[in-house]
Amino acid sequence: MSKVLLGPQPFIYPMPAFLIGANVDDKPNFMTAAWCGIANGAPPMVSVAIRPRRYTHKGIRQNWTFSINIPSVDLVRETDFCGLVSGSKVDKVEACKFSVFYGKLDSAPLIEQCPINLECKVVQILELGSHSLIVGQVEEIHVSEECLTDGQPDVNKVNPFVFTTVPAQNYQAFGEVIAKAFSIGREIQAKDSG
Amino acid sequence: MSKVLLGPQPFIYPMPAFLIGANVDDKPNFMTAAWCGIANGAPPMVSVAIRPRRYTHKGIRQNWTFSINIPSVDLVRETDFCGLVSGSKVDKVEACKFSVFYGKLDSAPLIEQCPINLECKVVQILELGSHSLIVGQVEEIHVSEECLTDGQPDVNKVNPFVFTTVPAQNYQAFGEVIAKAFSIGREIQAKDSG
Repeated sequence: MSKVLLGPQPFIYPMPAFLIGANVDDKPNFMTAAWCGIANGAPPMVSVAIRPRRYTHKGIRQNWTFSINIPSVDLVRETDFCGLVSGSKVDKVEACKFSVFYGKLDSAPLIEQCPINLECKVVQILELGSHSLIVGQVEEIHVSEECLTDGQPDVNKVNPFVFTTVPAQNYQAFGEVIAKAFSIGREIQAKDSG
Repeated sequence: MSKVLLGPQPFIYPMPAFLIGANVDDKPNFMTAAWCGIANGAPPMVSVAIRPRRYTHKGIRQNWTFSINIPSVDLVRETDFCGLVSGSKVDKVEACKFSVFYGKLDSAPLIEQCPINLECKVVQILELGSHSLIVGQVEEIHVSEECLTDGQPDVNKVNPFVFTTVPAQNYQAFGEVIAKAFSIGREIQAKDSG
């Protein structure tokens, strides 16, 4: 048996890349996350692991709501960017030119450019160590009309991408590496909002 | 804004497909799951959502341990199979010709044919409704030697695949649909073990 011990780490990559949204001090902010999962079927719930010191975490605690926005490959630059900088320093909505809208929950900001937007209400927060595991109930989903097939979001039209860590930190679409992680987002010239 | 309301559902596909392992009544069993996530960095933790009535769930409750095995595309048939049948009726290890081994935890069965195997100890189980969200601490990872690049599992060598739901329930490799879900696994002729 040619197995090698790697030591404990939460390695289940590739995982899809998401933009997690929250209103922080009443202003929309977004962070990049791949540490998400489906938590429950009925009622529908999702989970996201976020470090407590993150700016987005502050907004989630303030309102007990958040959003998950699924970006297409054409948003890889913006997605990477939202993982590179903190909303405490930069207005990411302005830098990325996101059109923000709200649905049923008035404190879960949604990105119009992302083909899928989930509005979530926090159900539970587990403090597990380095991260808080935030479990949210999906209250509503918005889908860009052109990404639907028979009324459901078609993954081939949504065209999402995954985050991989080895051999390099990349985003991979289905079939190709489209950008290098922690790199391409630097092309966006951010202005400090403070 | 051409957005359509979809109604609440936990839609964050595509998600990677995994084989969740547990010893049930001291015998190894595996089920297919895409409802997994990374839950914490340090200590390393993962989550998996499983219906309480599932046979694997019984084993996880018995031992408070489980495994996550990441299959390559060449195991798509076996992976689909493990989602189609219950371990209460069929010996899936025998049907799939899995070589099972154990690592640090003596009750978390691992599949040698899967390039990555995570041994997990249950930290917490949240009863969220239709599913239990099982949070497990990763105790050890085993990786097939040929899938390593610089000592880390290389996603391109591991060659995992994702589960998609629309336009059809498929497994998709990076770049192509390799098999139809809830279908190709039926090619395996299962013998009832009971």
